[in-house]
Amino acid sequence: MRALISVSDKGGIVEFAKELENLNYEILSTGGTYKILKDSGIKAIEVSEFTKSPEMFEGRLKTLHPKIHGGILYKRDDEKHIFEAKENEIYKIDLVCVNLYPFKETTKKTNNFDEIIENIDIGGPAMVRSAAKNYKSVLIVTDKNDYKDVINYIKNDKCDEKFRLQMMIKAYEHTASYDAYIANFMNDKFNNNFGKSKFIVGKKVFDTRYGENPHQNGALYEFEDFFSTHFKILKGEPSFNNLTDIHSAINIAKSFKNSVAICKHANPCGFGMKDDLLQSYKSALICDPVSAYGGVVAINGVINLELANELHKKGTFMEVIVAKGMDVDALKIFEDKKRTKIFICDFDKFDTDKFDFKFINSGFVYQNRDFIKDDEVKNSTLVTEIKANQNQITDMEIAWRIAALTKSNCVVYVKDSVLVAIGMGMTSRVDAARAAVAKANDMGIDLTGSVLASEAFFPFRDSIDIAKEVGVKVVVQPGGSIRDDEVIKAANEAKMAMYFTGIRHFLH
Amino acid sequence: MRALISVSDKGGIVEFAKELENLNYEILSTGGTYKILKDSGIKAIEVSEFTKSPEMFEGRLKTLHPKIHGGILYKRDDEKHIFEAKENEIYKIDLVCVNLYPFKETTKKTNNFDEIIENIDIGGPAMVRSAAKNYKSVLIVTDKNDYKDVINYIKNDKCDEKFRLQMMIKAYEHTASYDAYIANFMNDKFNNNFGKSKFIVGKKVFDTRYGENPHQNGALYEFEDFFSTHFKILKGEPSFNNLTDIHSAINIAKSFKNSVAICKHANPCGFGMKDDLLQSYKSALICDPVSAYGGVVAINGVINLELANELHKKGTFMEVIVAKGMDVDALKIFEDKKRTKIFICDFDKFDTDKFDFKFINSGFVYQNRDFIKDDEVKNSTLVTEIKANQNQITDMEIAWRIAALTKSNCVVYVKDSVLVAIGMGMTSRVDAARAAVAKANDMGIDLTGSVLASEAFFPFRDSIDIAKEVGVKVVVQPGGSIRDDEVIKAANEAKMAMYFTGIRHFLH
Repeated sequence: MRALISVSDKGGIVEFAKELENLNYEILSTGGTYKILKDSGIKAIEVSEFTKSPEMFEGRLKTLHPKIHGGILYKRDDEKHIFEAKENEIYKIDLVCVNLYPFKETTKKTNNFDEIIENIDIGGPAMVRSAAKNYKSVLIVTDKNDYKDVINYIKNDKCDEKFRLQMMIKAYEHTASYDAYIANFMNDKFNNNFGKSKFIVGKKVFDTRYGENPHQNGALYEFEDFFSTHFKILKGEPSFNNLTDIHSAINIAKSFKNSVAICKHANPCGFGMKDDLLQSYKSALICDPVSAYGGVVAINGVINLELANELHKKGTFMEVIVAKGMDVDALKIFEDKKRTKIFICDFDKFDTDKFDFKFINSGFVYQNRDFIKDDEVKNSTLVTEIKANQNQITDMEIAWRIAALTKSNCVVYVKDSVLVAIGMGMTSRVDAARAAVAKANDMGIDLTGSVLASEAFFPFRDSIDIAKEVGVKVVVQPGGSIRDDEVIKAANEAKMAMYFTGIRHFLH
Repeated sequence: MRALISVSDKGGIVEFAKELENLNYEILSTGGTYKILKDSGIKAIEVSEFTKSPEMFEGRLKTLHPKIHGGILYKRDDEKHIFEAKENEIYKIDLVCVNLYPFKETTKKTNNFDEIIENIDIGGPAMVRSAAKNYKSVLIVTDKNDYKDVINYIKNDKCDEKFRLQMMIKAYEHTASYDAYIANFMNDKFNNNFGKSKFIVGKKVFDTRYGENPHQNGALYEFEDFFSTHFKILKGEPSFNNLTDIHSAINIAKSFKNSVAICKHANPCGFGMKDDLLQSYKSALICDPVSAYGGVVAINGVINLELANELHKKGTFMEVIVAKGMDVDALKIFEDKKRTKIFICDFDKFDTDKFDFKFINSGFVYQNRDFIKDDEVKNSTLVTEIKANQNQITDMEIAWRIAALTKSNCVVYVKDSVLVAIGMGMTSRVDAARAAVAKANDMGIDLTGSVLASEAFFPFRDSIDIAKEVGVKVVVQPGGSIRDDEVIKAANEAKMAMYFTGIRHFLH
């Protein structure tokens, strides 16, 4: 048996090669890998000796040779292939262990484009792809986390075609990811990130029990390693819909210290920012405790025993609790709550993607993210006679950000740093305004003195008139309607302050 | 100058090679390409002659040779490289024209797995990647649509580094797409489509003027060729949000013959199915003409002059009209309407994806599509004393499908094949029911005799009580609440018919 080992990431390679040698594999190797193996006492043979062809061009050319690729590729059960191999002195290679030049890592540590280009591996992917193609006879190993399994499988004669087929799939995933990253990187650098092709590549974190509905299959994929590194499951299993709700809830809660956001169907139905998490949570329940039931609550901090007891209280049920951390005694409280799921997440690292996308039939739309800048409210323009006081400005900050993170059309009412009414996801803005007020009336919530935010301009004065009736004092919105004059007039008549941010935040 | 030509798709290759020959390129070639070039009188040299190494293993091994890859890869401006090339008799290759074995096409025409595997190209991608790496000195051509440009650029001395860099990017897009398709195909076949990695690959159709908001960049990408083939722009430029609305509107309209759907913010605000498109359109405006203003209307048929005149009528404004076709005289009507956009789309081919996905911070969730089966209403279970009549069953079919294609939570009221009220996108179902009724009251719409659909179960009887007040006669919903008994009781008290489909259609 013969193994070709050529790795850029040398982790675990000596142990792996030793095991192969003990299993009577002859080891072929190149450059740096060869040196390390040799230094560790492994009887490796250099590829250039095997091919009788020198390594050239500073290593650009090492393994692209018929003796290597023939040895990998020829069919072991084909008479003609066997004959040709013999005639041309091509010797079979049974195992190929390759990982590739660190292209991605290089792009992250340098702007030297020549160095980046030099780290496009040519020989490696060719060997990986050759070996994968001939997976029936060749085992392709591209992941150091597989070394142990591979050795065990060989030892126990379990290195069968089924296993080799899965390694083949992994190999093509490896080369596809590699070239997808190169293409995306180049398009980012030279074509403003909107090149002719776009590759969205995800590594599976876990299958979800089902998709958006029970008759659909679903799974979570991550771009890098956020979920596998910064998202911990303490209790229960995140569902497909939990994950989209968690996305929405954390995006809101992470913006404000000590805050708590509650989401349902990817929209907020509760938010509170008070001096401590307990008060924030209690106030987040004010707006719509009916919707909050069975919802996802994101807590921007560490859950202590007191807060845990409040979350656990009879009559309350949050399907998902996600926080930055949780005290051990706090977690214990939930042992009897079978249906409550608890996750820990690094909120601060959970929103760094520069782009997002949306499926539409036959394709997708792709865009850079709609980040809400911290100074949008600060830089907004007063357009009315009356202006907001300091407390109201804080409420504006909150209302504005929640509006930007709620499905359009939405209107958001905030008072004393608490969400007090919200209408969302509707085709007409005034309907959203009206639905919010209807709900608040039902709940007996007094909206007097609240701040109203809208993620896009008001096309008519009708929503302002509704706001006036319930005692709204401040409105923040982008402005830009052809009827802005009427809307401003309505605000002045109502003795409201109104601010234009000039920035729209549609979210669909 | 020397060009290596090895193509699977031979279209245009003879003309291209002839032009290169006229430009004094020496042509290297392999197998089938060589034969065609030779037969056309081009003085091509076989790669095996160039390398002094035979083609082996039924073509599995042809170009994986130091003379080929060295000739492509060595740096033309590096003394050491030049010396090594000379010493090893490696001659430079200046242009590489390669396209790959038809892996995707093979998977679509056969289930013979050996044949599929044989169509994984090994030598091709290696040459493409080598040439792309050395793009400063080598031109890589992977797309036959570029042949003309390439010749012109060479003739006019415009084949500069900037051009070669864009061809390099295209080359890595080509190899990335190729391996991504292999990995996805294998995962679909062997891992139920939920493998360890998932590749979503899109080809850009066009940049949109901006993304979801003016401060974002955006673009449309397609998986295959739907938009470039079956979507025609007659007038205006589809925006990012237009595209998501078109997706929603067509998905609704395509389900029912002669029907018209109007969407805003990705949710329906109008639907009508009557004997002809004109009546369907008029009835689609009944539910919410305010929201419909500036919306996207999908017309499941061909727009004639009469309908065009109606769409063009004073006081009406559809930002987007999308239909299966449009008569020439009908199109002319809109010449004076600057802001109206008109697109033609093959509705029937516009919903064939088996999967969809959603961005969430740091990754995405992926699932198989939620198709609404034609027999869901037909197979639903009557749970009340009263049952629906034939007209009501048609309204159930419509209401059920619209509910499944509207953002959750939603409730949909349909009467005589027309959407008469709708509440959507809200965190609480009863709020959606109430918002729909409030809107209908405002519009003076009589909901008596209408059919109500909900895409998920009613958790309480409250929505049924609201439905009773406005005269709803039939309810269709999945059922499955722990309070189904109360909900059924409410329906019986209201002398309504109620049907359980047993299938939920959450959409977020």
